[in-house]
Amino acid sequence: MANDLSGAALIAVDWGTSRLRAFLLDREGRELAEADSDAGIARITAGGHEDVFERLVAGWPKLPAIMAGMIGSRQGWREAAYLPCPASPAGLAERTLRFTTTGGRAVTIVPGVMLRSPIRDGDVIRGEETQVIGLLGRDPRFEGVVILPGTHSKWATVGGGALADFQTFLTGEMFELLSKHSFLRHSVAEGGAELSTLPDFGLAVKRMVVEGLPFLAAIFSVRVRQLLDNVTREDNLAYLSGLVIGGEIAAAKATGRLMPGAVPRIIGNRSLARAYHRAFEVAGHATETLDGKEMVLAGLTHLARATGLLPAQG
Amino acid sequence: MANDLSGAALIAVDWGTSRLRAFLLDREGRELAEADSDAGIARITAGGHEDVFERLVAGWPKLPAIMAGMIGSRQGWREAAYLPCPASPAGLAERTLRFTTTGGRAVTIVPGVMLRSPIRDGDVIRGEETQVIGLLGRDPRFEGVVILPGTHSKWATVGGGALADFQTFLTGEMFELLSKHSFLRHSVAEGGAELSTLPDFGLAVKRMVVEGLPFLAAIFSVRVRQLLDNVTREDNLAYLSGLVIGGEIAAAKATGRLMPGAVPRIIGNRSLARAYHRAFEVAGHATETLDGKEMVLAGLTHLARATGLLPAQG
Repeated sequence: MANDLSGAALIAVDWGTSRLRAFLLDREGRELAEADSDAGIARITAGGHEDVFERLVAGWPKLPAIMAGMIGSRQGWREAAYLPCPASPAGLAERTLRFTTTGGRAVTIVPGVMLRSPIRDGDVIRGEETQVIGLLGRDPRFEGVVILPGTHSKWATVGGGALADFQTFLTGEMFELLSKHSFLRHSVAEGGAELSTLPDFGLAVKRMVVEGLPFLAAIFSVRVRQLLDNVTREDNLAYLSGLVIGGEIAAAKATGRLMPGAVPRIIGNRSLARAYHRAFEVAGHATETLDGKEMVLAGLTHLARATGLLPAQG
Repeated sequence: MANDLSGAALIAVDWGTSRLRAFLLDREGRELAEADSDAGIARITAGGHEDVFERLVAGWPKLPAIMAGMIGSRQGWREAAYLPCPASPAGLAERTLRFTTTGGRAVTIVPGVMLRSPIRDGDVIRGEETQVIGLLGRDPRFEGVVILPGTHSKWATVGGGALADFQTFLTGEMFELLSKHSFLRHSVAEGGAELSTLPDFGLAVKRMVVEGLPFLAAIFSVRVRQLLDNVTREDNLAYLSGLVIGGEIAAAKATGRLMPGAVPRIIGNRSLARAYHRAFEVAGHATETLDGKEMVLAGLTHLARATGLLPAQG
C-alpha cells in the first residue's frame, strides 16, 4: 500500500560521491517516503544531474528540494562555495545556493565549510556539516566533539552553537589502501564483518592510543605478526582496522581534540559506529552514537526552516 | 676489453625482491666485475633460483657465493632463519645458512634479524643488516642511528659493535599508495625528479617535524591545497613526499630514535639520500650519506672473512 503523500512539503536530499538518497517530508519534517540509488556524483557526467534526480523522484509531488553533500562540489551539479569556520546554522542557511532547474523545480544546496589555519594547510567538509547542524537542531546548546567516521573521517568541534573547527583523517581510505593495495594484503583476510569484536582489534587500538606507536611503523607489524607468530589473516585484518582507527584517535588526542572526560558523539552507520565505540572504550572514553540518516534529515529540516522552505517550528 | 678475472675469489650477491646484483671479488674484496638483472625473488618460482643465478654468472669462474637479502626469506631460495637482536657481525656469520647447489657451488646466505618487544609486535629486517655490518666493518666503533630509506624504510640503532635495535617505516610504499592509488592521485603529478629541491617539500617536512601534524590528517591537506589554493600537481607531489618522509622523521623523533645533536648515517641511492638529507636539514640535523652498493659489498666481504670464505685481513 502506498503512503499517503498528500501532506508532502519538501524533498530532502543527501547526495554524496557514491550514493543518492531522497526523502519526502511533510511540513513538520516527518518522513513520508524514501528513495535511493547508487547514482553518486562520481557516476554522473556534467549536465546529467537533473535527469537522474527527476527520475528518482518521478512518483512524488513536484516540490522544492534541499540538498547536502558532494552535489554542491565543483564536481557536482552546481558549486556551493565553502563557508569559512565557525559555521552556524544561520550562516549556512544564508549561504545556501538556490536555483530553479530547467524543469522548473526550486533547488537549494547547502554549502560546504572550509577552515584556514597558519600551521596547517586548511581543511574542507561537505555533507557532514549538515549532520552536525542536525545535532545542533536537536540540542542547540551542545558543546563538544562530534566524530563522523568514514572514508574521510571528520572530527568536528562544536561550540557557541556552531561548527567551530574540524579535522579530516584519511582513516577509511587508508584501511582500504593497506588491506587491498599494499604488500600487507597478503597478510590480511579479504574482508570481515564486525572486526571490532575480535581481541586483536582492541590490542591494536591499545598499541596506538596507549603505547603511542607511530602509525607509519605500526602498520609493518601486521606483516611481522604473520611471519613470526602465524597470526590468522582474519585476526590480522581486525588488527589492521584497530591500528587505523586507533591511529586516528591517538592523533586527535595528541593534537588536543580529545580532552580527558570528553564523551564524543559518533554519527555514522551501526557497524562503523560500533567499531569506534569499542576503540574509544580502549582509549578510556565513553561515547554516544547518533544515527547518520536521522542527523542528515534533522540538519536538512533545520536548514529548510531557516530558509523558509518549511514553516518555522511552533 | 674484459677484466682480468684470474684473481677472483668470491661472488658477493645482493638479491632482493625486485633485483639481483652479483659482484666478482678478489681476495681483498675488491670488485673485479658486476652483473645484474631484474630477476628479484618476486619473479622467480620455487626451484628456479639456481638456474637464474647460474645464467647470470655463467661467464665468471666457478667460485663460492655469499648472498644477502630476500633470497634468504621464506619466499626465497632457502630460508635463513632470523637472528634475534642484538645482532653482531660474528653472530650473523655464525648463523649463515650454507649449502651446496645441485651444480656443486657452495652458497652462503646471510640471515635476517628479528626484534621482539613487549610493547610492539616485533620487527624484521633482511638485507639491510648486511649494509649495517658493512658500516661496522669500516668503522667498528660506530654508535648511532643508521637510516636505510626505501619501500620499507629501516631505522637501525647501532651500539656495542652490533645492530642493537631497529624499526621499519612503510614510507616508500605509503608514498606509492597515496600518489597512485588514493583519491589524492588526482591532486598530484604522476611523477617527478628531485622533488626534494622544491620548496613545498621542505614546507611539508616542517608541518610534520616542527608543527607535529598527525600523519593521517596531514595527507588530506594535499587535496585541500589543490582545492583552495590551486597548488600545481608537481608542487603537491613534492609536498606529499615531504609529508611522508617528514612523517617518518617525526615518528622516529617522538619515539626517541633521534636524539638532539645526532648525525644519522643514511645508506641509500643518491636521489633518495638527498631527499632525506634535505628533510633532516629542515628537522635540524646534519647527516652523512653512505653509498648503498658500497655498504652491501663491505658487509658481504666482512661476513665472508668471518666465515672463512675470504682470508682474514692482514
